[in-house]
Amino acid sequence: MARSASGLPFDDIRALFDEMPGRDEAAVLAIRARDAQLTKPAGSLGRLEELAEWLGGWQGRARPAVTRPLVAIFAGNHGVAARGVSAYPASVTQQMVENFAAGGAAINQICIVYDLGLKVFDLALDIPTGDITVEPALDEAGCAATMAFGMEATAGGIDLLAIGEMGIGNTTVAGAVAAGLFGGTGRDWVGPGTGVDSEGLARKAAAIDAALELHASHLGDPLEVLRRLGGRELAAMAGAILAARMSRIPVIVDGYVATAAAAVLYKMDPASLDHCQFGHVSAEPPHAKLLAAMGKTPLLDLGMRLGEGTGAAMAAGLVKAAAEIHTGMATFAQAGVSEKG
Amino acid sequence: MARSASGLPFDDIRALFDEMPGRDEAAVLAIRARDAQLTKPAGSLGRLEELAEWLGGWQGRARPAVTRPLVAIFAGNHGVAARGVSAYPASVTQQMVENFAAGGAAINQICIVYDLGLKVFDLALDIPTGDITVEPALDEAGCAATMAFGMEATAGGIDLLAIGEMGIGNTTVAGAVAAGLFGGTGRDWVGPGTGVDSEGLARKAAAIDAALELHASHLGDPLEVLRRLGGRELAAMAGAILAARMSRIPVIVDGYVATAAAAVLYKMDPASLDHCQFGHVSAEPPHAKLLAAMGKTPLLDLGMRLGEGTGAAMAAGLVKAAAEIHTGMATFAQAGVSEKG
Repeated sequence: MARSASGLPFDDIRALFDEMPGRDEAAVLAIRARDAQLTKPAGSLGRLEELAEWLGGWQGRARPAVTRPLVAIFAGNHGVAARGVSAYPASVTQQMVENFAAGGAAINQICIVYDLGLKVFDLALDIPTGDITVEPALDEAGCAATMAFGMEATAGGIDLLAIGEMGIGNTTVAGAVAAGLFGGTGRDWVGPGTGVDSEGLARKAAAIDAALELHASHLGDPLEVLRRLGGRELAAMAGAILAARMSRIPVIVDGYVATAAAAVLYKMDPASLDHCQFGHVSAEPPHAKLLAAMGKTPLLDLGMRLGEGTGAAMAAGLVKAAAEIHTGMATFAQAGVSEKG
Repeated sequence: MARSASGLPFDDIRALFDEMPGRDEAAVLAIRARDAQLTKPAGSLGRLEELAEWLGGWQGRARPAVTRPLVAIFAGNHGVAARGVSAYPASVTQQMVENFAAGGAAINQICIVYDLGLKVFDLALDIPTGDITVEPALDEAGCAATMAFGMEATAGGIDLLAIGEMGIGNTTVAGAVAAGLFGGTGRDWVGPGTGVDSEGLARKAAAIDAALELHASHLGDPLEVLRRLGGRELAAMAGAILAARMSRIPVIVDGYVATAAAAVLYKMDPASLDHCQFGHVSAEPPHAKLLAAMGKTPLLDLGMRLGEGTGAAMAAGLVKAAAEIHTGMATFAQAGVSEKG
């Protein structure tokens, strides 16, 4: 990114909000017109019709297609993990990155089934971010640089981007970000994550409350919420979603942590997420609350709470079908089928 | 089917309920044991874990797999269609069968995306069933023969069966069957189907009410409900679901009409549907009510209401992923990932 005149890294991010492209309305109209001619009752494919319109509208294609889909996983480590907020040791983040590389994780299998590309971005795993209960997670330059790094996920001519994460402790920072953006206390925004017990849950809520108190005077600015209460994978995901918007690449957001990253952009401008679908509502209880706060309706509800992009990738399977249905179906005229009487 | 001693065709059907196999509990235990070792928090894949267990349990495979999935569409015509209960002329049933054969329908595209086989069974389309408002849809021999024909859908070594239908007027007979099985009036069990207006909706409800009154003294027997108030595609779907159970082939049931066919078996024995998943809840309002009456939780909720197996086929895409995830993932030991602390 070019440096802004002010020299403050976040100003470069803010400037992008003034240059955001909309969807291709001509493509949307073409898709709608063709949909009305396809051999099915109008509206009978429900959200699959909406998905075809959304996909083609952002791709700028009158015939939506998913030819180069990518799942991008961002992995980060968190100073707050030392406060007993996770059921797993922080070393698992690195171990899971290696598992992704070896093809052994759940996300690898989903990518095989639906023929999705997969890239893993590990974000300085040996240097955890600051413990949000006592200091900001990141400084402004570090946060902006991580956002810029996340923007690289949109390279390579991809036409659908599914966004996920891995990071021991990151449902705690997601809860802190959600509370920082939408108000409430730690209790309102925590869940069991990878599986903490009730004492662990209390530690998560207490950590969020301590962080909210420490950073209270900075929570009016969503980017400050991100850098103070978030973490590297959240910053990178926010960057990726933003870069996808600038390139009109449709995005599927995964679970609670990815949604918290998206929520930072939402708070800056709700329309900045118009190119996004939310792949699923996870079993992590505050995820449904966060989606509702943004008025977003997820595609799937399968009780998943794994992260690593799995919910978004499952939804990518639906999106692929939506594109193929719209593009491959015959019209009433082609098929010689009588229209509504 | 062999003829029973009584010589009454339905007795052969009833006899099958005494011979129903259960799932393979050894396979279930093996799947559960392996699931606990996979590199993810326990339970974090939600319904995908349940699906792996369900699939392998019925397949009798410790490693569930979807290698020969089939979507079976049953098409029938209905005497009651002459009563103005559909937005489309009855000729559309045959036209859509030709569209399936030509590859132009929505279901064809979904089968391409998820690599599912497709067979279409057309059921004497030029001889509509009796108008249920004035006579039974079928006689006992015809109903049993159609059920036996539907059983053919399980041939060919398939390991997953998705069941759907096509038939102008068949949401009306589905409503009649649902009311016949679970009580209530026409109004309780109708929706817009392919898209009737409020007057069409009133005609649907009135047709169901007339049929319920005519056949009132026979509604205690689910098979009588099926033959009197149903139609050929419902009978064939009930036969297919039953035959799949006898061969322990897991089944995914599509929307309202397919669910009404399954409900006939449910009323004979709720456990007879243990090998079934319900692919989605459709936008046809009484579908959710019918699922709830049987205590079934659908996999998808995408506002679809097309029929032709589309909701079941979309869900088959989820099931394929569930199998691949379970079978392909690494264990904690294989991947060198630390377990829960």
